[in-house]
Amino acid sequence: MIVSALLTSVGINLGLCILFFTLYSILRKQPSNANVYGPRLVAEGKSQQNSCSNIERLLPSPGWVRRAWQLSEEEILSTTGLDAVVLMRIFIFSLRVFSCGGIVGILILLPVNYVGNQLSDIDFSDLPNKSLDIFSISNVNNGSKRLWIHFCSIYVFTGVVCYLLYYEYKYISSKRLAYFYSSKPQPHHFTILVRSIPASAGRSFGDSVESFFTEYHPATYLSNLVVHRTKKLQGLIKDAKMLYKRLLHLRSKDSNQQKLMRDGFLGLFGRKVNPIDHYEKKLEDLEEHVRMEQSNLSVAGEEVPAAFVSFKSRYGAAIALHIQQSDNPIEWVTEQAPEPHDVYWPFFSTSFMQRWISNLVVIVACILLTILFLVPVVFVQTLTNLDQLETFLPFLKGILTITFVSQVITGYLPSLILLLFLQTVPPIMKIFSSMQGYISHSQIEISTCKKVLWFTIWNIFFANVLSGSVLYQINVFLEPKNIPEKLAVAVPAQASFFITYVVTSGWTSLSSELFRMIPLIWDFIKRHCSGSYADEFDVPSIPYRCEIPRILFFELLGITYFFLAPLILPFLLVYYCLGYIIYRNQLLNVYTPKFETGGKFWPIVHNSTIFSLILMQAIAIGIFGLKKLPMASSLTIPLLILTLLFHEYCQKRFLPIFAAYSAESLIKKDKENENDASMTDFLDKLVTAYRDPALLPIQYSENRDSHNSPLLSSTPF
Amino acid sequence: MIVSALLTSVGINLGLCILFFTLYSILRKQPSNANVYGPRLVAEGKSQQNSCSNIERLLPSPGWVRRAWQLSEEEILSTTGLDAVVLMRIFIFSLRVFSCGGIVGILILLPVNYVGNQLSDIDFSDLPNKSLDIFSISNVNNGSKRLWIHFCSIYVFTGVVCYLLYYEYKYISSKRLAYFYSSKPQPHHFTILVRSIPASAGRSFGDSVESFFTEYHPATYLSNLVVHRTKKLQGLIKDAKMLYKRLLHLRSKDSNQQKLMRDGFLGLFGRKVNPIDHYEKKLEDLEEHVRMEQSNLSVAGEEVPAAFVSFKSRYGAAIALHIQQSDNPIEWVTEQAPEPHDVYWPFFSTSFMQRWISNLVVIVACILLTILFLVPVVFVQTLTNLDQLETFLPFLKGILTITFVSQVITGYLPSLILLLFLQTVPPIMKIFSSMQGYISHSQIEISTCKKVLWFTIWNIFFANVLSGSVLYQINVFLEPKNIPEKLAVAVPAQASFFITYVVTSGWTSLSSELFRMIPLIWDFIKRHCSGSYADEFDVPSIPYRCEIPRILFFELLGITYFFLAPLILPFLLVYYCLGYIIYRNQLLNVYTPKFETGGKFWPIVHNSTIFSLILMQAIAIGIFGLKKLPMASSLTIPLLILTLLFHEYCQKRFLPIFAAYSAESLIKKDKENENDASMTDFLDKLVTAYRDPALLPIQYSENRDSHNSPLLSSTPF
Repeated sequence: MIVSALLTSVGINLGLCILFFTLYSILRKQPSNANVYGPRLVAEGKSQQNSCSNIERLLPSPGWVRRAWQLSEEEILSTTGLDAVVLMRIFIFSLRVFSCGGIVGILILLPVNYVGNQLSDIDFSDLPNKSLDIFSISNVNNGSKRLWIHFCSIYVFTGVVCYLLYYEYKYISSKRLAYFYSSKPQPHHFTILVRSIPASAGRSFGDSVESFFTEYHPATYLSNLVVHRTKKLQGLIKDAKMLYKRLLHLRSKDSNQQKLMRDGFLGLFGRKVNPIDHYEKKLEDLEEHVRMEQSNLSVAGEEVPAAFVSFKSRYGAAIALHIQQSDNPIEWVTEQAPEPHDVYWPFFSTSFMQRWISNLVVIVACILLTILFLVPVVFVQTLTNLDQLETFLPFLKGILTITFVSQVITGYLPSLILLLFLQTVPPIMKIFSSMQGYISHSQIEISTCKKVLWFTIWNIFFANVLSGSVLYQINVFLEPKNIPEKLAVAVPAQASFFITYVVTSGWTSLSSELFRMIPLIWDFIKRHCSGSYADEFDVPSIPYRCEIPRILFFELLGITYFFLAPLILPFLLVYYCLGYIIYRNQLLNVYTPKFETGGKFWPIVHNSTIFSLILMQAIAIGIFGLKKLPMASSLTIPLLILTLLFHEYCQKRFLPIFAAYSAESLIKKDKENENDASMTDFLDKLVTAYRDPALLPIQYSENRDSHNSPLLSSTPF
Repeated sequence: MIVSALLTSVGINLGLCILFFTLYSILRKQPSNANVYGPRLVAEGKSQQNSCSNIERLLPSPGWVRRAWQLSEEEILSTTGLDAVVLMRIFIFSLRVFSCGGIVGILILLPVNYVGNQLSDIDFSDLPNKSLDIFSISNVNNGSKRLWIHFCSIYVFTGVVCYLLYYEYKYISSKRLAYFYSSKPQPHHFTILVRSIPASAGRSFGDSVESFFTEYHPATYLSNLVVHRTKKLQGLIKDAKMLYKRLLHLRSKDSNQQKLMRDGFLGLFGRKVNPIDHYEKKLEDLEEHVRMEQSNLSVAGEEVPAAFVSFKSRYGAAIALHIQQSDNPIEWVTEQAPEPHDVYWPFFSTSFMQRWISNLVVIVACILLTILFLVPVVFVQTLTNLDQLETFLPFLKGILTITFVSQVITGYLPSLILLLFLQTVPPIMKIFSSMQGYISHSQIEISTCKKVLWFTIWNIFFANVLSGSVLYQINVFLEPKNIPEKLAVAVPAQASFFITYVVTSGWTSLSSELFRMIPLIWDFIKRHCSGSYADEFDVPSIPYRCEIPRILFFELLGITYFFLAPLILPFLLVYYCLGYIIYRNQLLNVYTPKFETGGKFWPIVHNSTIFSLILMQAIAIGIFGLKKLPMASSLTIPLLILTLLFHEYCQKRFLPIFAAYSAESLIKKDKENENDASMTDFLDKLVTAYRDPALLPIQYSENRDSHNSPLLSSTPF
């Protein structure tokens, strides 16, 4: 790829970004778009009444940037929780890393690369038609002493990244502890989930749990709630909700618009009836059915061998959590309970074996998905190598000779296609994760996040790198000894692709995140085609499973290409600067947290960064070998070992903090609440906190006045 | 190797075994050898007064076999503990495995191999001069349908081994629990070791521990004992013991034998003194010194940031053990306390970082040892390939043409040399393990056992297999894809070497175990050269670190060669039968347990067997590929996956039982002791149970009457 192709790509994307930004700053001021650009504010009732004049409303303005900039970390913490803070810390961390990296890379490494003449003689004329490779390490002469500069910069950069990693891990650990210390009593701190309750003849699971915990935890045991199989009931309630929505919709129409309908098959046969009465009748029947099912369930329902067990103190719950309860380790398996509204009810997979097998199935499914995904990746690779495309599709020859078309095709199209295909991955991975038997939305989100991250690294980085040079060389990893060498050949060759990938995929994803294209269109359709549905909307939650892997993938690109092709760094810095502002803005206006993990996303960030460092060092080992500087190659190995040791240390030092709270903190919190009068109230509520929402009474048909309330699930917290 | 060479080897070893057995059955009846062949009985005072006549004493008799055979598992459990039972269960398990394997191997696979004609035409004449390879799978024709018999037998054998593994794991788990339920209150159930106690200004570690545990575990906390740095003191006490021994020796001599000595430099200068008085004086000085040091230590000694913390109940200790105590996970690190007499005091490595670094150092040291050990292995390999030896040392040509010499050299010498070198490994590995910061002899023993096992597998199995065919092919393992194929070529080629290895190393080690050559010689020297020392002897403890790896290594050989060269199986069966009888005899007469891990050696056995199965299956995959039966090769892969899943299941189902006791069992035991009057006594003793023996008062000089007692370390349990 030549310099001018890169410039074309940058130009297109810069144009797109500016367009989106301008459109955003206009559209967000239209009151009709409040549901799209400020759903959080609308839900909180803080949607500012637009005081500006009509002309002001039509002019772009950068006020939102200032507001986003001024937002402090304490505000984010108090309004959107610790997870949002972690999200922002990823940006801050990356900005710090790539500022240091950028200074070294652009001021030192880039000139060193450029004055090499491995690829072409030094010649400052005709820059636009030169290959981007002259800015990469490939241009440094073999055996050149200048490679020691690269060697030193790798050491310095690794040192800086490790220091920053340590600092951030420490910072977020302390935030997590502070968050816990300042929290009010919360049901999930007092509750554990017990699975694989052994069946005993003539006794319900509830009785078993009751007698087990009163025997072994008499001082702290409070209550239990056995989980029921409510799949059928959930279906019925869903139907009732749908009917209720349709009914609302019908009622909102003018009565003269209402047509009579037939009550028979498909509304084609039977006698004519008023549809409102008809649906009302149906809804009442359905609700009756639901109530019957509910009472059936609570009397003799199909119990699942799992129960939420609540304790009188946090420490009591922690004791039951951490000590193996029964002599048989696969019975009475305990687990931290999630927040009540975070419980994932639909697929409450229970038995030990079931969960184990579904785990295995998911692993196989992930591998299959990865293999299937190679198809678009290979297609994209043929686009970057135009010669191949011409041999496949000879009739395109004429078009491809036009400079602009070929530049668009090599510079823009490949990453766009990849981007579109990548959009389908997070939802699929989410389905996989929810099949694994996780019991909360947050666990599913964390697991999805990990899956998407590794999928992205494998399918975007490795598949591109290895298929770009030697097609389908997946079995490189079956010969670990040769990995550094193979990567050293393949990775620098893809530098220009990834530079454009940052520009197209990264910048575009940010501006579309800001612009919210799909919600905007969706909102438009809803408002203009189906009137009454408009006032009932969901405030979106932060899509960690898409965002974190993307941000981390760019970090991986930045770290691996830091010394190979430092030209990537300025584009990454732009990405992180934009991202920093845009996500602050979105946290302020758009997203509401659906759960709080207390910063459990950070270990993913840490691990991924360490992986990037190791990858970078492995490539360095290979590159120095290829460049005939075996001394530097061997001297990089200690760095790799040191990095692994650093990781090991951090795992020991910080990871346990994210797994569970310590006795010290739990007891301190318990003592704090000991003389609190509100604790009795809290414990009363705790008893029913983990009731399955499908078992809560429903009432749509009669309760016509306040028709919004029953749609919200009403847990006591 | 030809059949007659094998027969030579079998002959020699059988002769040796019979010789050792005969000598044993004679020597054990000599009263003077009681310390060698029945030290356990002597120590227990049960040494039977030999009633048999002089002639009977000189005739070999098989009475000991009958007694060993009649010993029941309950007796072993009550006299030598659960670990000895586990040792015997390894033999029982192996006997079962190889009985099944032997039936399939000898009756089905061996004939199938023999009628193949890949290596030579079927010809029943001249059997002694045929290569052993005609009994191995190498002789089956390529692409032969008969290989499906091997395929089926692999499936059946894996099934049988997995069933037996499951059965044994379950059996030993239940034994472990039963052992715990039937145990009396023991200090290590009530105590934990706390390490990395944070230093706080102006406070001793003892105060820190006291205030921490009284604050966070007020109901259950009993007492603490901070560990002191007693290296200097231990040295002094050792010197005092030595002096005391010398003094005893001098006193036991006739007084007219005693010469006067000079009290100056090296006993050459100064005035003449009576040596008894001289040493007495010296000993008194030394004891005074020790007492001074002890009182110094207890007042202002150098404290180590580690303490034994005792609790009033087992459950209380378990709670403190399992829950992370402090917000900083590398402070207040808790660990199960070992039995008081099992604590390993000399190297009480303490800080988190120190232990971590010494772990790393030990890993590096193990790798170095492995590399160094390749030298003798390569030498041994040149012996099995006589041609190579002839080219290296041409002057041997004349000798090597003598049939018997060459048979001895190929059949016997290699394994003997290996055996001698292997003897040095367990002590070295024990030193490594004790450097890793383990705090008890039992942990060191378990860790040594693992190290020796993997060392044996690597250096005997892999180094022989891979250097025998392609010298120094260690980097086979850096190309995982090719492992099955490479192993399939190399492993069958070494079949005859390992058959002789079983006969020489296995049978010889058993008979020398029975005969106790070295203790016998040692005892002889002691008795005849240094009179008085004889009555003071140590009862040996079971050398798990040597025995378990050896038994497991033979199991690995049996499992991997089960379908390759079933001829190995009868020799193994003989080994396990002999071993079964001999170890029962030794447990009855010789060994006394020094510690009790409660069966923690079994997981090592389980893991090693699973590894053997996986190895066997990997070789099968390669062999079927080489033998042009790719279908069978692919169909073996599911078996490998199933075996791994089985292992995973067992890890989940049984391993936690060996890590810690459950809440259920702990609370049951606590309740049992609740109304026990002796508990008060027990708790009183518990407070001082973990006193460093170096801090106990010593008294050698005055206490002349009962001079045996102070030599035994006197902990209250």
